[in-house]
Amino acid sequence: MRPMHVQHIRYEAGVLFLLDQRQLPQTVTVRELRDWRSVGQAIENMVVRGAPAIGITAAYGMALAARAYAWQPDFLVRMMHTAAGLVKTRPTAVNLAWAVNRMMDRIRRGIAAHESPESIVTAVEQTAAAIHADDVSACRRIGDLGAPLLAEQSSVMTLCNTGSLATGGYGTALGIVRSAWRDGRLRQVFVCETRPLLQGARLTAWELAQDGIPYVLITDSTAGDLMRRGEVQAVVAGADRIARNGDVANKIGTYGLSVLARAHELPFIIAAPTSTFDLQQASGAEIPLEQRAASEVTEFHGVAVAPEHAVAANPSFDVTPAAHIAAIVTERGILRPPFDDAIAALLREPEALR
Amino acid sequence: MRPMHVQHIRYEAGVLFLLDQRQLPQTVTVRELRDWRSVGQAIENMVVRGAPAIGITAAYGMALAARAYAWQPDFLVRMMHTAAGLVKTRPTAVNLAWAVNRMMDRIRRGIAAHESPESIVTAVEQTAAAIHADDVSACRRIGDLGAPLLAEQSSVMTLCNTGSLATGGYGTALGIVRSAWRDGRLRQVFVCETRPLLQGARLTAWELAQDGIPYVLITDSTAGDLMRRGEVQAVVAGADRIARNGDVANKIGTYGLSVLARAHELPFIIAAPTSTFDLQQASGAEIPLEQRAASEVTEFHGVAVAPEHAVAANPSFDVTPAAHIAAIVTERGILRPPFDDAIAALLREPEALR
Repeated sequence: MRPMHVQHIRYEAGVLFLLDQRQLPQTVTVRELRDWRSVGQAIENMVVRGAPAIGITAAYGMALAARAYAWQPDFLVRMMHTAAGLVKTRPTAVNLAWAVNRMMDRIRRGIAAHESPESIVTAVEQTAAAIHADDVSACRRIGDLGAPLLAEQSSVMTLCNTGSLATGGYGTALGIVRSAWRDGRLRQVFVCETRPLLQGARLTAWELAQDGIPYVLITDSTAGDLMRRGEVQAVVAGADRIARNGDVANKIGTYGLSVLARAHELPFIIAAPTSTFDLQQASGAEIPLEQRAASEVTEFHGVAVAPEHAVAANPSFDVTPAAHIAAIVTERGILRPPFDDAIAALLREPEALR
Repeated sequence: MRPMHVQHIRYEAGVLFLLDQRQLPQTVTVRELRDWRSVGQAIENMVVRGAPAIGITAAYGMALAARAYAWQPDFLVRMMHTAAGLVKTRPTAVNLAWAVNRMMDRIRRGIAAHESPESIVTAVEQTAAAIHADDVSACRRIGDLGAPLLAEQSSVMTLCNTGSLATGGYGTALGIVRSAWRDGRLRQVFVCETRPLLQGARLTAWELAQDGIPYVLITDSTAGDLMRRGEVQAVVAGADRIARNGDVANKIGTYGLSVLARAHELPFIIAAPTSTFDLQQASGAEIPLEQRAASEVTEFHGVAVAPEHAVAANPSFDVTPAAHIAAIVTERGILRPPFDDAIAALLREPEALR
């Protein structure tokens, strides 16, 4: 097994290389970004997507801005402006704000300690690289912790893309799939195509094919029928933000799958690094949910699939209540209901013990 | 309100004109078919779709064959061959076999009564026209009977296309929507786009837009979230075949919507003419469910949306158990659980009382 399946985010001395995920699997295009505004646009336009991956990308965006601004008298103000600009590109995934805040903390410490611009830039680039490396480790740990939750010879259903392309590498829900496959526990994966942008079909099927993991691609509305036939043993999904009570915001359709899993008495498992938790949100009702352009639904590759002036809603995320979730797998352990206590206990531990 | 919204099936002296539904809403192309084999291909390739509509189309296909073969010595054998060829084009919708059998009955009666080839052809064409006209009347009756089932100011969810394009005219589930709109009971319709062939986006949104009925197009996986938010008051769907116990085979995704409706305590209403009932099937487990080509999922307008050699499943239908259904609206009355008794009673009535 290759340790990192797709090196889709790469930073080198002032250039951020991003694999353009919008064009996969047809075309492998790498974009070269040299300033933070291009990085913000790449996140907004979904050149890169996936909660952990956009956190990492934004961290590198902060590094690019630091290189540009560290010698300016208004460095801190410019970085605060940059941070705000990056955070607002996608409202739901909290990893974005988490990564940007961690970068700002390092910058503030550097300024407070009167570090030279050169040292601050170096430290900021190292922090971004550490966020990236930590995410890869977290995903491997999530995968290894989560795999034993699956019964032997499980067929597992998942949606969207939670793999290497959605993270620093290896994946969250797809990390569990990878570890389970490595351990011989996995029979196959049912991949929901995930309309409207088809991340399941375009990205997850592509990653699984590359790893030789057996999968069956399905339309999102086929999920219920497969469960009714007893062909699915568990559902694994990622998360864009997890509230204090364990409610999970994730790709639209996650909630529906959780209702189906419940009706068929299947375990519904969430996989996410601790950077996905937002203790400022008491419940899912408080999580901001992005609405994207109707044209993502009414057009396909520029071809209209609905009548002219069609009215369409395109919420990108929904909220799955904690009550529907059997386990939340993090890099620091598996959380079980009641999640409010489990989350508080996990995040209360000092960093040193983590 | 226009009495027939789309005249998409039209027969004139040996020519069947079919609106090509695959190209809607972009292009309005009418195909001219002059022999039964082209009619069979049009059904198989989904130039026309929708259980009642393919029954009507097949009836006209039988009429074209009768015109071609009525003067041949082996007329009956040729018509039996034609009937078998038409029935096998789509396995799930029973209206197809129902219409073809009704045509065969008329042909057999004509032959037994030594009618002239000319009279048989005329009678056969009249029978096809009657099947067509009866379906339009049945749909209007279904709409008018079903509309009062919706609470005042309901927002109703539906999937696929059950409108004029799926029937002789007016529609089944969309007939209920049309009658409810006329009666001022309807707030709006949530239209599931219905992957893979997007009949919701391409056909239902198009019909509703033409009638000025407010609708919101959504991806199929958005359904659950809208129900959770309390934005949906009922789900209405059509049927391709209804077993003796009330189990319903219909477009893939219907089952999932029925589970979601149940979890949110929403009425789940099926609308179908009595030609959709198949008393030979004790339950949904016996209904043959069509599997269509994987390429419908892995490609879009000829563009690949999944990796090369992607493995995909593409079941066109699923089965919704009778226990999930609040009412089945037919042109002869509204059936309520327990459906086995209700269906037996309804279909036992002599035709004269219907």
